[in-house]
Amino acid sequence: MQRSGLGHITCSIARTAHVVGEWWTPLILRDLFAGIGRFEDLRRDLGVASNVLADRLATLAAHGIVERRAYQEAPLRYEYVLTDKGRDLFPIIAAFIRWGDRWETGDAGPPTTLVHDGCGRPTTPTLVCDHCGGELTADAVTTMAGPGGRTGPGTEVIGPLLAERRARLAPGRRPGSRPRRTRPRA
Amino acid sequence: MQRSGLGHITCSIARTAHVVGEWWTPLILRDLFAGIGRFEDLRRDLGVASNVLADRLATLAAHGIVERRAYQEAPLRYEYVLTDKGRDLFPIIAAFIRWGDRWETGDAGPPTTLVHDGCGRPTTPTLVCDHCGGELTADAVTTMAGPGGRTGPGTEVIGPLLAERRARLAPGRRPGSRPRRTRPRA
Repeated sequence: MQRSGLGHITCSIARTAHVVGEWWTPLILRDLFAGIGRFEDLRRDLGVASNVLADRLATLAAHGIVERRAYQEAPLRYEYVLTDKGRDLFPIIAAFIRWGDRWETGDAGPPTTLVHDGCGRPTTPTLVCDHCGGELTADAVTTMAGPGGRTGPGTEVIGPLLAERRARLAPGRRPGSRPRRTRPRA
Repeated sequence: MQRSGLGHITCSIARTAHVVGEWWTPLILRDLFAGIGRFEDLRRDLGVASNVLADRLATLAAHGIVERRAYQEAPLRYEYVLTDKGRDLFPIIAAFIRWGDRWETGDAGPPTTLVHDGCGRPTTPTLVCDHCGGELTADAVTTMAGPGGRTGPGTEVIGPLLAERRARLAPGRRPGSRPRRTRPRA
């Protein structure tokens, strides 16, 4: 269970988990999205040990997700802000909120309300197809190997499965036809 | 950095991370969504130690995300399948794929292609408002306290910030007006 292992798996889920999947990191991102970026504020908000917080922020900085910005000259003080790459993590955070709101909220109700500035209404983030606008659920999507798909560590079984699915579905596949599902052989 | 700590934070991100944020779990979910559900297939695919895999599956079962289903009678053999609660994690997995594809893919290209069965085309999962259909990005959403919002461990700074934002924005707020952003005090 080497942490360094996930980043080398040929899989976007693994590569993303490698960067943002460390313990506490989703909550650090939550705070950064809310505009809380000073080390002491983050430490106090989360009640996390300083060395752990420093380690997580260093990982995020090394991957270009946060950068330090001076907010005071004398003495020099920095805060952490999200880069464009970091701000693009918003759909992950929103997906966490949506699922937690739906399945792990008690009688008190959801801890937060998201308001879409564009229409001014409380919103439930919904995942859709960028082509037709239809909702994307587990039952409405077929995953197949992409151009960078490989079989190797972390994809020993799923690699051949997705490659086979691509070979079967991609050639001569008519738009609108529903691909059959395939199951792995034991 | 107690693992048991996150689940008690009044925050849907924390509650979700508590359940699915363990190391290896996003990849286990990936495999389950692909129909790989037998213990030995999961172990071989991921190259993960059996005790770690068993621990992760036990956590998922305890939270109602997977259940065991017999696929053979003699000898009795089980596979793991996602429940409805588990299948509803798809937007999180899709958000991981989208971000990894965009920011962590090398020259080889994305490892997988997602096809939307409804329209039959390769799709880029996009997060939109369930009311107006506008895209939800970090810049287009304002987060405020919800009915279950609390200030406490894990929300010591963000709790008052989101409550203040709600008090300022919720009363008399006109639909379509863009809320001003607020920043935490140092």
